[in-house]
Amino acid sequence: MSEAVQTAVAGVTGYAGAELARLLLRHPRLKGKPPVFAGRLDARDAERGGIPLAEIHPELIDSKGSGNLRMQPFSWELLSDLDVKVLFLATPHEQSRAWAPEALDRGLRVIDLSGAWRLNEAANREIYAFEDEGSTRAIKIQSEAVYGMPEIYRAEIANARLVANPGCYSTSVILPLKPLVAAGLIDIDAGIIADAKSGVSGAGKAPTTKTHYMYAADNLSAYGVFAHRHTGELLEQIGVPADAIVFTPHLLPIPRGILSTIYVRFREPQTRASVLHIYKTFFAGSPMVRLHENGLPQILHVARTSYADIGFQLSADGKRGIIVSCLDNLLKGASSQAVQNFNVMHGWDEQEGLE
Amino acid sequence: MSEAVQTAVAGVTGYAGAELARLLLRHPRLKGKPPVFAGRLDARDAERGGIPLAEIHPELIDSKGSGNLRMQPFSWELLSDLDVKVLFLATPHEQSRAWAPEALDRGLRVIDLSGAWRLNEAANREIYAFEDEGSTRAIKIQSEAVYGMPEIYRAEIANARLVANPGCYSTSVILPLKPLVAAGLIDIDAGIIADAKSGVSGAGKAPTTKTHYMYAADNLSAYGVFAHRHTGELLEQIGVPADAIVFTPHLLPIPRGILSTIYVRFREPQTRASVLHIYKTFFAGSPMVRLHENGLPQILHVARTSYADIGFQLSADGKRGIIVSCLDNLLKGASSQAVQNFNVMHGWDEQEGLE
Amino acid sequence: MSEAVQTAVAGVTGYAGAELARLLLRHPRLKGKPPVFAGRLDARDAERGGIPLAEIHPELIDSKGSGNLRMQPFSWELLSDLDVKVLFLATPHEQSRAWAPEALDRGLRVIDLSGAWRLNEAANREIYAFEDEGSTRAIKIQSEAVYGMPEIYRAEIANARLVANPGCYSTSVILPLKPLVAAGLIDIDAGIIADAKSGVSGAGKAPTTKTHYMYAADNLSAYGVFAHRHTGELLEQIGVPADAIVFTPHLLPIPRGILSTIYVRFREPQTRASVLHIYKTFFAGSPMVRLHENGLPQILHVARTSYADIGFQLSADGKRGIIVSCLDNLLKGASSQAVQNFNVMHGWDEQEGLE
Amino acid sequence: MSEAVQTAVAGVTGYAGAELARLLLRHPRLKGKPPVFAGRLDARDAERGGIPLAEIHPELIDSKGSGNLRMQPFSWELLSDLDVKVLFLATPHEQSRAWAPEALDRGLRVIDLSGAWRLNEAANREIYAFEDEGSTRAIKIQSEAVYGMPEIYRAEIANARLVANPGCYSTSVILPLKPLVAAGLIDIDAGIIADAKSGVSGAGKAPTTKTHYMYAADNLSAYGVFAHRHTGELLEQIGVPADAIVFTPHLLPIPRGILSTIYVRFREPQTRASVLHIYKTFFAGSPMVRLHENGLPQILHVARTSYADIGFQLSADGKRGIIVSCLDNLLKGASSQAVQNFNVMHGWDEQEGLE
Repeated sequence: MSEAVQTAVAGVTGYAGAELARLLLRHPRLKGKPPVFAGRLDARDAERGGIPLAEIHPELIDSKGSGNLRMQPFSWELLSDLDVKVLFLATPHEQSRAWAPEALDRGLRVIDLSGAWRLNEAANREIYAFEDEGSTRAIKIQSEAVYGMPEIYRAEIANARLVANPGCYSTSVILPLKPLVAAGLIDIDAGIIADAKSGVSGAGKAPTTKTHYMYAADNLSAYGVFAHRHTGELLEQIGVPADAIVFTPHLLPIPRGILSTIYVRFREPQTRASVLHIYKTFFAGSPMVRLHENGLPQILHVARTSYADIGFQLSADGKRGIIVSCLDNLLKGASSQAVQNFNVMHGWDEQEGLE
Repeated sequence: MSEAVQTAVAGVTGYAGAELARLLLRHPRLKGKPPVFAGRLDARDAERGGIPLAEIHPELIDSKGSGNLRMQPFSWELLSDLDVKVLFLATPHEQSRAWAPEALDRGLRVIDLSGAWRLNEAANREIYAFEDEGSTRAIKIQSEAVYGMPEIYRAEIANARLVANPGCYSTSVILPLKPLVAAGLIDIDAGIIADAKSGVSGAGKAPTTKTHYMYAADNLSAYGVFAHRHTGELLEQIGVPADAIVFTPHLLPIPRGILSTIYVRFREPQTRASVLHIYKTFFAGSPMVRLHENGLPQILHVARTSYADIGFQLSADGKRGIIVSCLDNLLKGASSQAVQNFNVMHGWDEQEGLE
Repeated sequence: MSEAVQTAVAGVTGYAGAELARLLLRHPRLKGKPPVFAGRLDARDAERGGIPLAEIHPELIDSKGSGNLRMQPFSWELLSDLDVKVLFLATPHEQSRAWAPEALDRGLRVIDLSGAWRLNEAANREIYAFEDEGSTRAIKIQSEAVYGMPEIYRAEIANARLVANPGCYSTSVILPLKPLVAAGLIDIDAGIIADAKSGVSGAGKAPTTKTHYMYAADNLSAYGVFAHRHTGELLEQIGVPADAIVFTPHLLPIPRGILSTIYVRFREPQTRASVLHIYKTFFAGSPMVRLHENGLPQILHVARTSYADIGFQLSADGKRGIIVSCLDNLLKGASSQAVQNFNVMHGWDEQEGLE
Repeated sequence: MSEAVQTAVAGVTGYAGAELARLLLRHPRLKGKPPVFAGRLDARDAERGGIPLAEIHPELIDSKGSGNLRMQPFSWELLSDLDVKVLFLATPHEQSRAWAPEALDRGLRVIDLSGAWRLNEAANREIYAFEDEGSTRAIKIQSEAVYGMPEIYRAEIANARLVANPGCYSTSVILPLKPLVAAGLIDIDAGIIADAKSGVSGAGKAPTTKTHYMYAADNLSAYGVFAHRHTGELLEQIGVPADAIVFTPHLLPIPRGILSTIYVRFREPQTRASVLHIYKTFFAGSPMVRLHENGLPQILHVARTSYADIGFQLSADGKRGIIVSCLDNLLKGASSQAVQNFNVMHGWDEQEGLE
């Protein structure tokens, strides 16, 4: 086995950061070489040499020693001193926007879990109002960024310096739609409806009115209706015109998991076999996608796994399809997909460390 | 105030039965005249004069005396001896199918909470495979049955002998769609998608694999995809051809509540005001429907209430709409709607006993 | 029926305030005379004449008009202009400490839901560090305050000017223990253990790390172990020396309800009948306490009700008892107990408006 | 690395069986040698060569091949043909009682997850009413059975032929109490209270009234109060006389996890340091127990892990202690403890396959 790669994770404090830490700490290719955890710290925490990881995420404590790991004050010198080769950014959009270019300049490979580098079209990036929008440098870096979905861009990811890790909702809609749209099956003009439901971890770790237990529990609510924050990513990746997809997210009273129910019309009537054939062909060699040949997936069976599950039903006349996709929003929707990209970037088995 | 009407409830053992009991026991028009609770009992329970209601539903115990109420062995003699005028059937389909005709013959007015008498078209009733299907008597009774949705059939319900109380999913889809379809706004050919999510009480009281806590909790699953069990009721009441509506139910990890997300295309572009105007006109005089003039309803605010809440958003071009409707599946989706019908049948304020 | 009393509620924004509003708005003695809702508002909200109640608590909207109610800027003039007779304080401790004396001076009767006036002994009040601690005025008012548990202080409450409404945990421990301690059954020296578990609404409406869905859901945690914040209230009311009771609260992953499991040793062996006799005697005429003569209560049957349920089991030798008490922390643990006190203060049926 | 041991699992259909399958399938010492899964099958399933594991536990499907694993019809010939060395019994008590002796006779080593062989004293076994109770053979086998808690019986387990894997509640009470009792710290006469709360998976996979979502969700209930089903195991292992421990289980509305709150009195006043010292000494070399040196553990941090977490608080006078222990009822409370025993039996790192 080749020598372990030194990695660093910036922004380990959130839910995706915690899952990323957990995955990397047990990754067989990183045995004995734990990631460097770094982030912005206040003076007091910096002074005491950072924050023990176990204080931030008590569930990461074990009795062997990961209890000794710390989130250290981030600096480029720290990374170069420790000979870090791959930097995971589990940071907010703005921070990833600023740090990724610097990291590339310093010869690091970057896997960014934020939305900073996912969108190719300027119009779709408007929602972020990035300070460097339109600058030569940003344009150049964006053109180099590879959308981190190995099922579509495996070859490009292998050589990428900057991987833009997809969003969780996007992953749950792109994976089931891309194969069918690419094969020309879908009647785009008839419109596609993606009714998506996500657990509360998708709403982030900050305590807000919306993440208060009393609001989220025993409830279901739709939000962001006809607002296109996520739609740009969907449209670009699936390759359909604006407004071809109506995407509606809902907040589910569960900790983890996304289920998307997707409604399509076909150009020509399809059979179960014809649709299954397209999926099987597309996902051949993609171990993290599980096709349900008969039934439909549900959140229970993907939560806390690194898989995306896809199943579907056709109308009796074969003209319409309902596709159900499920995944864990923090894993295939964030951190395990980042590790999958990390594996692909090093030519390892895509599934390494994810079983 | 006129003298209280003597009522009876057959089938009080289920969740809808419990809610119906609770509502009728505190109904101001029934003060001092609690319903007769009756059902099929085994020999042992019949011998001890029935089962105390508090044994079946401990939450119905109070310290004043409803603890003394019993579910008695059902017989027509019991009902006539006690001078029952209105019979609520919270019984399975087959039982309602058998008992409603007998009750009508005996001069009772009937409010049936099952699906026995909801469907006008024989084709739509096929799923039930009723023994008396096609008989002269059944046809006659069906022709007389009134669909128990006061917002649509208030006048007919007032004089009805047999009210077929709507299903919970149906109520959550018909209420928001009927006004728009009736006004000719909806592009029927473009198809309507109703993505509905219901709490576990909708799956009934029988312990099954699906209602096991370990299956239902922290999960979301779609079921009955492209199966038309509920679609007949929708199609008949909304008045659209077969396949105009794709309806997909999901099982939510909450005890109570339904949220339906409904996707439509309009014939002509609409504005917020134009759609609101149609709803306001349609629901004028309908106190159990709450329109959300700005935002969208959510389950938290309707659970354990008798209201149906409706809100909507339009696409920027006004060509598409997403309507969200919420209700409590056991109340406006079952028992409070039954009480609403009961009120209308007696000319009382529709909201009596439901506040 | 006598003319309705004009009431006011200060601090309607929290969970207990919402429940209090809901109860008072439907209270039969207040028909047509809704409470005045008032609180501290910022300039903008004060300018627009207050905040619509339906904005603060959407679940309070109905289609009849409570949607028009507002939380107005609090002032003593507002209360006197509107001829308010009873002021409910659902305010923080400090505010209740300041406002209650002023209200009494102005001739109002006060029901305070905070901890400001619950504790008779200065040592037990230390945790609050009240600014006016030890002042002549505070001492005088405290001496006049009546602990608002009608099951114990019914007569005193009837004439009280200031009622200190009990805490939710305290209610769930005092109600089951007081009768047994008062009857001399309990071996105090052997110590009493009260292991209490409360739903998240007990932790308040402010979004915090602890009330975040991701922390509270699928979890259970003990807190405040051997910290005596609530113990003073228990000790004073039950009438036992310091350290006689070990009280441990836990945070349950449910919205509402408290269950306390209480472990005692008896001075002399008891029988089911002997213990039941004491409870029945003590709670005769107390409609809001439901004794379980055979089984044990559980949260499901008290949540969203105004009852406190009590049940117990004895060891085979009759020397030990385990008592389980359940109640809804926002109702019998706060707002419905306040309404119960309100009823007692006016000589009405204690249960009025709580059924 | 030595050659992989062939294992078999009987009774893979329950929750503990599923977790055991998951752990063994990824166990590094069993690479390429998956367990044989066997059980009683009906004729139809036997005919088709058993049931695919993925049909029983869809969450065990992966895209690599465990989808091909089957639960085969159990027979002793199957086990000997496949050269099985270790048999895990995740079977009901009666079945384990019958199969374990047979397995030993055939030279297999047995790890039994049921209660069949946990109890040394006949009086404590009465609750099971085993058919072979008192037989020479049963007595002999019982005398040979080792209680499968490596933290106490590591040496005996290493050589055991029959390991009786502890119950989940017992593990959560024995681990925190044994060190203190063994060190003579606890005042046994004063009595020990263990107030335990378990998630629904502890109630088994059979759909019952109690495991129905509508009963378990948003609820908390005590059960088995003063019934000694589990107490025998506690008393024998902790080594205290009957009635020294009052143990009360509660059903928590969460899928997984147990939290036990344990109340003790010390013979002599203790300090945080003195208690911690005893725990540290006792659990030195026990990697699956995590001591919380400052705070208290909670279920969130142990659910889906193989750890037992222990923390405690002392009263100000050091005379009383409250100990909180947490574990996942299906892992350290069942399957990961079985794997831990399996590791000890082979001289491997106790933590192998459990990280």
